[in-house]
Amino acid sequence: MRVLGVDPGLTRCGWGVVDGLPGRRARLVDVGVVRTPTDAPLAERLLAVAEGLEGVLARLLPDAVAVERVFARADVSTIMGTAQASGVAMMLAARAGLPVATHTPSEVKAAVTGEGRAGKEQVTTMVTRILELEERPRPADAADALALALCHLWRGGPTIGTTNGRGAPTAAQNAWASAAAAASARTSWVRR
Amino acid sequence: MRVLGVDPGLTRCGWGVVDGLPGRRARLVDVGVVRTPTDAPLAERLLAVAEGLEGVLARLLPDAVAVERVFARADVSTIMGTAQASGVAMMLAARAGLPVATHTPSEVKAAVTGEGRAGKEQVTTMVTRILELEERPRPADAADALALALCHLWRGGPTIGTTNGRGAPTAAQNAWASAAAAASARTSWVRR
Repeated sequence: MRVLGVDPGLTRCGWGVVDGLPGRRARLVDVGVVRTPTDAPLAERLLAVAEGLEGVLARLLPDAVAVERVFARADVSTIMGTAQASGVAMMLAARAGLPVATHTPSEVKAAVTGEGRAGKEQVTTMVTRILELEERPRPADAADALALALCHLWRGGPTIGTTNGRGAPTAAQNAWASAAAAASARTSWVRR
Repeated sequence: MRVLGVDPGLTRCGWGVVDGLPGRRARLVDVGVVRTPTDAPLAERLLAVAEGLEGVLARLLPDAVAVERVFARADVSTIMGTAQASGVAMMLAARAGLPVATHTPSEVKAAVTGEGRAGKEQVTTMVTRILELEERPRPADAADALALALCHLWRGGPTIGTTNGRGAPTAAQNAWASAAAAASARTSWVRR
């Protein structure tokens, strides 16, 4: 099961691909960020995001795509661009024939840290540990995309394949969650 | 100058194409609505919108695309889907190599009715008159898309070609606006 996580954005659109199967440790495939210049026309920025993600889809051939769910909030100056980028990402995933799920930021934080209100540094720390990375993924958008992919693996991405990511956990998902919790409890991590 | 107007949405994405040149009456090329089922996954709905608009772009070969600018507002339940659809539309237009502009709803209403707070029926009435249509375009999303295309023609789409649609009107645009105002003042319309 290979999952592409996408943290949508125009200035920085994070993406991260992980491989995982129940009972096995999740493994980093690749991670990166699509950047677009803030002074470029909006349509051109969306096209650049699309081309970046299409490249990732074609090169890494994920089995599923998880996109962070965008909410209307106080910071409306950037939220529309974020929503537009997420729409492009979801459309491209559907065009590639892949199941697409969305997960909320608090679902993602809870999945990798155990706490829905965790900060960005904590998320990055846990992503680094869970995937046994030698370096912390930077920028935060890249780490967030990996966290999304891990969240999707653990919340049962393989069995949902819809756009809402809801549903009670299956036995396999619970097994995953237990394994993840056990892994999180380790105090030191060594890359193998 | 052929303009595609897009009124973005998931349940109904209106599109309308008009031909126009300074000093000539704008002419309807075609108009329609891409509909997607409300119970389909979001990513599939976005893909259906994309495929519908790609078909229009390929068949009618517009010179420019105008998309309604989406604002965060109280009705947040649908605004994210609308923003996502607008992102897809803008990305596809950029991919087709076309200049993309956005216009606000009040700009569009003011362009075709002279009043930024005009109602949907009034917009439909004026679009029907300006384009000398025998029938009122339905649903309102289709009429709104035509109004967007007309707004783009009159606000100087040819000279802007950016995503914000701002800028002082040129002499040609002012001539257009005068012609439009004169046309609006006619009390009866006959299709030729």
